[in-house]
Amino acid sequence: MLQRTLSTTLASHQDERVAIEGWIHRRRRLATITFLIVRDRSGLAQVVVSDDATRQQLDRLGEETVIRVEGTVSANAKAHGGMELTTPTITELSAPAATPPVELWRPTLAVSLPTLLDKAPVAWRHPAQQAIWRLAAASLRGFRETLDAEDFTEIQSPKLVGGSTESGATTFIVDYFGRPAYLAQSPQFYKQMMVGVFERVYEVGPVFRAEPHDTVRHLAEYVSLDVELGFIRDHRDVLRVLRDVLAGMVESIRKTAAEAAELAGARLPDVPAEFPVIHFSEALRLVGADPHEPDLAPEHERALGRWALEQHGSDFLAVEGYPAAKRPFYTHPQPDDPRWTNSFDLLFRGVELVTGGQRLHEYADYERALADRGESPDAYESYLQTFRHGMPPHGGFAIGLERWTARLVEADNIHRVTLFPRDLHRITP
Amino acid sequence: MLQRTLSTTLASHQDERVAIEGWIHRRRRLATITFLIVRDRSGLAQVVVSDDATRQQLDRLGEETVIRVEGTVSANAKAHGGMELTTPTITELSAPAATPPVELWRPTLAVSLPTLLDKAPVAWRHPAQQAIWRLAAASLRGFRETLDAEDFTEIQSPKLVGGSTESGATTFIVDYFGRPAYLAQSPQFYKQMMVGVFERVYEVGPVFRAEPHDTVRHLAEYVSLDVELGFIRDHRDVLRVLRDVLAGMVESIRKTAAEAAELAGARLPDVPAEFPVIHFSEALRLVGADPHEPDLAPEHERALGRWALEQHGSDFLAVEGYPAAKRPFYTHPQPDDPRWTNSFDLLFRGVELVTGGQRLHEYADYERALADRGESPDAYESYLQTFRHGMPPHGGFAIGLERWTARLVEADNIHRVTLFPRDLHRITP
Repeated sequence: MLQRTLSTTLASHQDERVAIEGWIHRRRRLATITFLIVRDRSGLAQVVVSDDATRQQLDRLGEETVIRVEGTVSANAKAHGGMELTTPTITELSAPAATPPVELWRPTLAVSLPTLLDKAPVAWRHPAQQAIWRLAAASLRGFRETLDAEDFTEIQSPKLVGGSTESGATTFIVDYFGRPAYLAQSPQFYKQMMVGVFERVYEVGPVFRAEPHDTVRHLAEYVSLDVELGFIRDHRDVLRVLRDVLAGMVESIRKTAAEAAELAGARLPDVPAEFPVIHFSEALRLVGADPHEPDLAPEHERALGRWALEQHGSDFLAVEGYPAAKRPFYTHPQPDDPRWTNSFDLLFRGVELVTGGQRLHEYADYERALADRGESPDAYESYLQTFRHGMPPHGGFAIGLERWTARLVEADNIHRVTLFPRDLHRITP
Repeated sequence: MLQRTLSTTLASHQDERVAIEGWIHRRRRLATITFLIVRDRSGLAQVVVSDDATRQQLDRLGEETVIRVEGTVSANAKAHGGMELTTPTITELSAPAATPPVELWRPTLAVSLPTLLDKAPVAWRHPAQQAIWRLAAASLRGFRETLDAEDFTEIQSPKLVGGSTESGATTFIVDYFGRPAYLAQSPQFYKQMMVGVFERVYEVGPVFRAEPHDTVRHLAEYVSLDVELGFIRDHRDVLRVLRDVLAGMVESIRKTAAEAAELAGARLPDVPAEFPVIHFSEALRLVGADPHEPDLAPEHERALGRWALEQHGSDFLAVEGYPAAKRPFYTHPQPDDPRWTNSFDLLFRGVELVTGGQRLHEYADYERALADRGESPDAYESYLQTFRHGMPPHGGFAIGLERWTARLVEADNIHRVTLFPRDLHRITP
């Protein structure tokens, strides 16, 4: 039996007899011939069917039926890739498929988002949809390759935790053998502890937020790309690693998923050698906001994004020095003015993509920070252990994978770039 | 200020003044000098302190205090790596550390497992412990590199699911905005659906089992390495990919974590070009078990492991054909005898490491399989969608990361190789 050939490699088999395998993407029956498009993981191939028996066979095989086609590779300038299969014989690898819930052969899927999400297991077969997750996969690869090369160790921290990480309000509660446990909102505490072990760590994993909001930006579960490193001077060292990581992610897409980027309509950014940085107080001034605002509003972020593009030709802008009030207790203050912190947000095209910064590393500072917020250190016992036993100055950041791909393809709704989104109303498929 | 040098690279800086940064691993005060061992992410370095003021400074800095040492690199055949630092000046990068709960400088940590796990954030700093997770990280890298090279796409499936995947008995229940949801016991359904999209997929992620057992083999949360691929002939094609993956994992350890393998006392296997395969019925006969046994007992697996080593010189043995009764409903029967299935377990040194096989791919077969088990297809609606719309013959497998590292270092208890294990009694740290 002929070995399988992928549809995008036909050009190297001209005039040979080959076998391709895939899904019936589309059939077009004309007066004397039927055009068949077969889709496999590499792309599409055209098959020309003129034999009557085979045309009749195709008539009963709906779109999405899985088939094997043996045919002769023939040049045709009009076919995808300049080649098509002629004089084919077709073997069915699955029973005839039911009519797909969405027309996968159309260039774009013109159906509502809820329908798309309900039909995700089949709808995501559409080439432009597939491409979005190929971008995500290529990004993850670039993320890890960059950090592996810089001597980071990959960790996997537990998602079932005994206490909530950041704030109790948005934590999912699990029945853990009859007692309550929580789903980790982030690997924050674990990645810090592991700086004590490996100095430099990263993790790719799910995080869980019981967000009671139904918006285009929120997910109850998403993929977080977490990084933490020790022996830094301050948060600027963290920003430098973040720059390398994002550059590596874009580079990986260019290298391994250029076609997917095109199919998904992604606009890949140029990552500058160094991110432009602006202080939070200066950012407020620049957008004409009240100097006592504790945070940037979305319209401020958009204005700053435009400013970065005009002034620095950069899709990215780091805003540093966020006020302590809006940052978690482990955030390191700005040494010369404790109203501010050594933390940052990275804006990508005017939207917050990454949050990061330097953390406290002295036990006494944690005790004080918790006391200032009226919290007891007892709730953080196993986390605080670490700081009693020697921790270097350290910091890190977290990138939301879905937020990243949403920005790349300029999606209007984060659910559109999430494989199986979870929110207030959706827990299936 | 001098740039930081890693402790294992001192040999390339002989007679230069360098700065190292790390933890005080050990101090030994002799009559006229103090030996200081500094630990950083690369390993250990010896510092010789003869200056009185610096010796007194060290007296008040406990083990695990984080310091910076500037000193001259001097040859000393007795020191680790043949070099040591002399005439040092020491800068404190953290407050003096409290005495560690375990003596990290001892070659082995001779404390009970519960103590180790309670003190994990600090105990895992021990070089031999660190090494275990470096093995895990290197294995993951080899896993992904192998599959990336074979055209697989990485996916991230949701961990919050609307129905239980395999059997209700061991599923954790989550309060999902006032309704019940479940923690995924495996990405099985999602990876199969994604074969319809990408043909070949893999995922590394947490899985959750509410195992009410307190044993040396069970974890309530572990890291699963999942693979699924379409257009196979049968489960033997899946076994071939599994072989490549395990070979890639071992190769990655040899290439990127050879020192960790030595420190952790790992015994790396040779992965044969092809796994020896034995049929389940033949396996029962070989170990002298009742031919009607539906599964292999642990002592049978151990006996088969010894047999594979003797007969095939292999640490691995694939057992194929397990009876349908003991396999999930989506398992593909053995075409010539439906008492058996196209599934396998891979034994590694006489312990089950991997479960896998060919799955059903026709909708009608799923309906029948569920009916045979008295289950309604309604509960699996979004999963079954996939099979109505054309799915190729496919199969896959899952490797438990902790089980893999446990076997490599021959750990007596899986908790010993798990960063932060979760079980019936343990949810912290």
